[in-house]
Amino acid sequence: MGAVPYLALVSALAALGLAGFFYTDVKKASPGNERMQFLMNEIQSGARAFLKQEYTWVAGFVAVLAILIAALISIPAAITYVLGALLSALAGYAGMTVATMANARTTEAAKEGPAKALPIAFRGGAVMGFSVAGLALAGLMVVYILFVLVIKVDDAFEVVTAFGLGASSIALFSRVGGGIFTKAADVGADLVGKVEAGIPEDDPRNPATIADNVGDNVGDVAGMGADLFESYAGSIIAPVALTAFSLGLIADSTGVDGPDGAGNISLLVFPMFVAFVGMISSIVGSFLVKGGTSTDTKALSRALHMGTNVAMGLTVVGTLIGAFWLFNDSAYFDNPLGLAISVIGGLIAGWALGKTAEYYTSDHFNPVRQIAAQSETGPATTILKGISAGMVSVAASVLLLLLGIGIAYWGGELAVGDGLIDRGFDGGIYGIAVAAIGMLATTGVVVSVDAYGPIADNAGGIAEMAELDPSVREVTDALDSLGNTTAAVAKGFAVGSAALTALALFKSFEFAISAASDGEILLDLDIGNIEVFLGLFAGAMLPFLFAALTIDAVGRAANKMIEEVRRQFREIPGLREGKPGVVPDSAKCVAISTQASLREMAVPGALAVVVPLIIGFLPNGINALGGFLAGALVTGFAMAIFMANAGGAWDNAKKYIESGHHGGKGSDPHKAAVVGDTVGDPFKDTSGPSMNILIKVMTIVSLVFASAFVSGPFA
Amino acid sequence: MGAVPYLALVSALAALGLAGFFYTDVKKASPGNERMQFLMNEIQSGARAFLKQEYTWVAGFVAVLAILIAALISIPAAITYVLGALLSALAGYAGMTVATMANARTTEAAKEGPAKALPIAFRGGAVMGFSVAGLALAGLMVVYILFVLVIKVDDAFEVVTAFGLGASSIALFSRVGGGIFTKAADVGADLVGKVEAGIPEDDPRNPATIADNVGDNVGDVAGMGADLFESYAGSIIAPVALTAFSLGLIADSTGVDGPDGAGNISLLVFPMFVAFVGMISSIVGSFLVKGGTSTDTKALSRALHMGTNVAMGLTVVGTLIGAFWLFNDSAYFDNPLGLAISVIGGLIAGWALGKTAEYYTSDHFNPVRQIAAQSETGPATTILKGISAGMVSVAASVLLLLLGIGIAYWGGELAVGDGLIDRGFDGGIYGIAVAAIGMLATTGVVVSVDAYGPIADNAGGIAEMAELDPSVREVTDALDSLGNTTAAVAKGFAVGSAALTALALFKSFEFAISAASDGEILLDLDIGNIEVFLGLFAGAMLPFLFAALTIDAVGRAANKMIEEVRRQFREIPGLREGKPGVVPDSAKCVAISTQASLREMAVPGALAVVVPLIIGFLPNGINALGGFLAGALVTGFAMAIFMANAGGAWDNAKKYIESGHHGGKGSDPHKAAVVGDTVGDPFKDTSGPSMNILIKVMTIVSLVFASAFVSGPFA
Repeated sequence: MGAVPYLALVSALAALGLAGFFYTDVKKASPGNERMQFLMNEIQSGARAFLKQEYTWVAGFVAVLAILIAALISIPAAITYVLGALLSALAGYAGMTVATMANARTTEAAKEGPAKALPIAFRGGAVMGFSVAGLALAGLMVVYILFVLVIKVDDAFEVVTAFGLGASSIALFSRVGGGIFTKAADVGADLVGKVEAGIPEDDPRNPATIADNVGDNVGDVAGMGADLFESYAGSIIAPVALTAFSLGLIADSTGVDGPDGAGNISLLVFPMFVAFVGMISSIVGSFLVKGGTSTDTKALSRALHMGTNVAMGLTVVGTLIGAFWLFNDSAYFDNPLGLAISVIGGLIAGWALGKTAEYYTSDHFNPVRQIAAQSETGPATTILKGISAGMVSVAASVLLLLLGIGIAYWGGELAVGDGLIDRGFDGGIYGIAVAAIGMLATTGVVVSVDAYGPIADNAGGIAEMAELDPSVREVTDALDSLGNTTAAVAKGFAVGSAALTALALFKSFEFAISAASDGEILLDLDIGNIEVFLGLFAGAMLPFLFAALTIDAVGRAANKMIEEVRRQFREIPGLREGKPGVVPDSAKCVAISTQASLREMAVPGALAVVVPLIIGFLPNGINALGGFLAGALVTGFAMAIFMANAGGAWDNAKKYIESGHHGGKGSDPHKAAVVGDTVGDPFKDTSGPSMNILIKVMTIVSLVFASAFVSGPFA
Repeated sequence: MGAVPYLALVSALAALGLAGFFYTDVKKASPGNERMQFLMNEIQSGARAFLKQEYTWVAGFVAVLAILIAALISIPAAITYVLGALLSALAGYAGMTVATMANARTTEAAKEGPAKALPIAFRGGAVMGFSVAGLALAGLMVVYILFVLVIKVDDAFEVVTAFGLGASSIALFSRVGGGIFTKAADVGADLVGKVEAGIPEDDPRNPATIADNVGDNVGDVAGMGADLFESYAGSIIAPVALTAFSLGLIADSTGVDGPDGAGNISLLVFPMFVAFVGMISSIVGSFLVKGGTSTDTKALSRALHMGTNVAMGLTVVGTLIGAFWLFNDSAYFDNPLGLAISVIGGLIAGWALGKTAEYYTSDHFNPVRQIAAQSETGPATTILKGISAGMVSVAASVLLLLLGIGIAYWGGELAVGDGLIDRGFDGGIYGIAVAAIGMLATTGVVVSVDAYGPIADNAGGIAEMAELDPSVREVTDALDSLGNTTAAVAKGFAVGSAALTALALFKSFEFAISAASDGEILLDLDIGNIEVFLGLFAGAMLPFLFAALTIDAVGRAANKMIEEVRRQFREIPGLREGKPGVVPDSAKCVAISTQASLREMAVPGALAVVVPLIIGFLPNGINALGGFLAGALVTGFAMAIFMANAGGAWDNAKKYIESGHHGGKGSDPHKAAVVGDTVGDPFKDTSGPSMNILIKVMTIVSLVFASAFVSGPFA
């Protein structure tokens, strides 16, 4: 059992090796003609410029919080906090660099058909996928081995948790900042380009086209990568922290010690074992994604999904074996397979959440078609139908989540025996915590497929801007649509795991308060307590405020972009007419979107960290904070689902009409659907996805600062 | 002290007498020419037809629930339940009858200027106001005197609470059904009439015009009246129930007995005393609303608001005196004025909530103007800005509410001394409960002013349809705009008191469970409990589902209306052209809207009652139900504010543009603003206001059925 952290570390390093292999593999491919390389470099340098400025800004934030952690918690915690942030930033930077290399190469390969192009786009995405998973797991295992097993610092598990807070900090700002950037550029490019100037999407004359493509990379690649980095790390940290805080484990001469040696260790390393199994499975799965010789899209789709499906299947088998091995100690465990049920329950719940999202956002099903039908009576009915469909999807998703939580809880209760129950260990909550890992163990391959999407999308943009033969665009469009199903499942995993992880971290917070005060202060989270209820109210309000701030941020950033595009069309002679040799100042657009999005992300981003700290340090604040976190979690989850699904549904209703229904492109219903799509843009790409991280950031910041709250000035 | 319930009863009967006096006063006025009388009769018979059918439908529901209450709780509880429902229905019917009489009379009086017309519209509304307040208070006092003081039934306070559930049942269906009716008619009339046929608002050729005016009465008069009836009754019941359940009071030979005679009685009768003072103050205030001789709108506005302001001032003074009188027993109370602070704190919080709503929805302030400015860039930005403004208003409102709760809690803690604290009585929560009465004690005059609005609105419609001189319409429009400020304050009271009352009822639920099981079953509402957390999740989801169902209901009902109006324009020769003698089939439109709204209200209405019952009867259900109620309360409050304010803001942004800004009527920004307004219609008039009742209905149904849950099959 002692070997598990090392096994996990080795699997993480293998993932990093694989990322390196895929990098060289992608690099070997031809990036196409000069024009294509020029475009690729523009996008790449724009994306890098954004990331550099974003990281500079966030570095200041991280530095302040690191000092606070060093002063109030401990220096090792500050170190792991910074490490978590650094590795997440590194994964984002590496993944995005390769993604912005893979785009032109995918376009070039698309000249020879989808079978050639698919592996390049996938492997480009896989650099991101395995960088994210590899760096997160490797970093976490190094922290665990170093601080818990080797140096054995005081409050070792607080130190481990701080790694997660570092990852969350980056994820929050990446999602918010990237989300604002991508939508500001998108809206700016569309509104002035398509609507005012009447030129097609991705037209080289449009100054915002490059920014739009940069946005896909910083939002959908870097933002999504940072999100999954923190989700993945958080899902491993949550059950470890829960075990450690609730059993009062400490790092001592034997490595980790507490009242029940064997039982403890099994519980501590099981999450790592699942991560190890998932990583190996992902590596195996990633090699199964091959183009083959067929150009049939069904066959290609099978090839793309094969990797994920095999990885998940292997993870299930590995988890069963691991549970059987780790939990066969009858003194502490009743049913060795109980926790495997939790993990598998989580996997199924995440899959079902993803399928629900697909049902509500795909034009193969009723909700999107009804929205499209409502566009016949104008934009108002389109909006209302999208809102109600999004809200109904909340009900469906919450019921599925509750079912998943119930199964995971039951599995945990089955597993844990009296030896642990007598010590106050709650097997059910532990089951919930490991259910999140069920969803995220295959992060490597899941993120690969997710990052594949924007690469294929960018490849299409380059084909358009480089004015290649329309057949190339057709191939890239086909590739683009392939990833959708798996992307939906990945979204389900992200949002489902966020709820489970936050719930487990929330429980850890309760134990951490007790542990930090040597059992003197116990949280009293009875909803009937007035502080708890006030906290609950405030927590339920926060997602509304956060959504409003991010929506307004996109609006303001988009306005700046619109002004700049209009200015260029007005002031650069011959640009609108497409006079040869006249090129737009794309870099200016990128710079404007960068500045605007970084300025705009500050308030909502800081809010997520500052508000829990303020509440926690108030007199009687910790109970109110408990209520606050719970209120924010349940309402934030609902808002995340509502905004993501309503936004996705409007987007696809528009596409459904564009594909020739209800009058097709240019008809009045299409105009109404475009209104829906524009309303949905910040919903689905900025506010909604940020909400997932919001609820975790607030919980993990509370957990890390638990000991400071307890010894705070008003405690 | 024993006299207080009788005093309250007498004041309630006086209010009913006043309603009768105002009725004859209004009836004396001339209803105008034949055409006006015809229109008035059309509206009145349409509204009556709707109410009759609605009440028939709801009677079935009430009968089923009454049988359930008789079987599971007690026969007296079933009787008071039915009584609460009956009286609420009676108040709605009476108030609406007079409102639909007062409209044409206001139009007729408007020929002689606003000073003549104002008192008629106000007194028409006041019949509603004093019927609502009088019947609610009289009914409640009769129930209290009869079942608690005279017959002394077992579980007497459960019986009192059931009266509130009866009122809630009617309120829920009236709000949902009325809200669907009014918006279906409004949208139908506007879309086909104004947009397709190009005829002005309230044009007599439009078959849906009568239905639209009927809608104002069934939604804004009857729906609002039922809402306030239940809010008012609920705000008195909540502190009474809290006191009785938490101190274990029973009706016995001395009337009411429990461990601390004097302290108990003071706590029981204080809410009734505040209601008594508020009723007398309202009666005094209502006589101060006089037209005078001035036709200056400022002077008229002062006259209208004078009634409310004086009533509130007198209530504050009376409350201070009452608190001093009732709580001067040092054995149980430390500070006799503490609970007056709670009441006044509630009054101020409600006022501030109303002002916040006004800030976010009036075109004198930034939010609405920003929405209007965003309409320059089309409907999408109009929608986004309205959504974000509505969401920001949630943050402001929640913070104010929390402040109000804090003050009320503090006042209660100040007041209650060790003699009660030792018995586990929570003075702070009691303070929160009576704060709601602070907002609602002047319901009589507040509802009068609120019902005044739709009467003035209808009067304008009749002026238009009867083709009177445009100067008459100008007067009615001026009258219409007068009531807005006070209406905003009334909205603040409604939503604020809903949160406070629900919170107090929630606490009573905790005590009721313990009391019903003789202290054997205690709710364990620690958020860390898995059932509680699952309940919290489900509760936070429900307002989303409820909003979706009601939005969709409006959409479907409006579609039916649109089809009918189109059909009439198509099939009735000469209608569109306005050929003399050709009249539309208005009754058909009323019938269609009636049928559609009644069919559509069934599912969302039943949901509110059925879901808590299902959860409560589940194994381990009561803790989950506690979490569920809390989750629904905090999220429902946020959604209610969001939807009401976003909807109101869009409405006024449209009106702001129509008054000549951003291009005025017919411009592109105006078209964008119309989209916002249409989206906002079901937000502000259907889903939003229903949400207030939803959260209370679910709590009160749980409270009434508490003893059944405890002895249920899975308990």
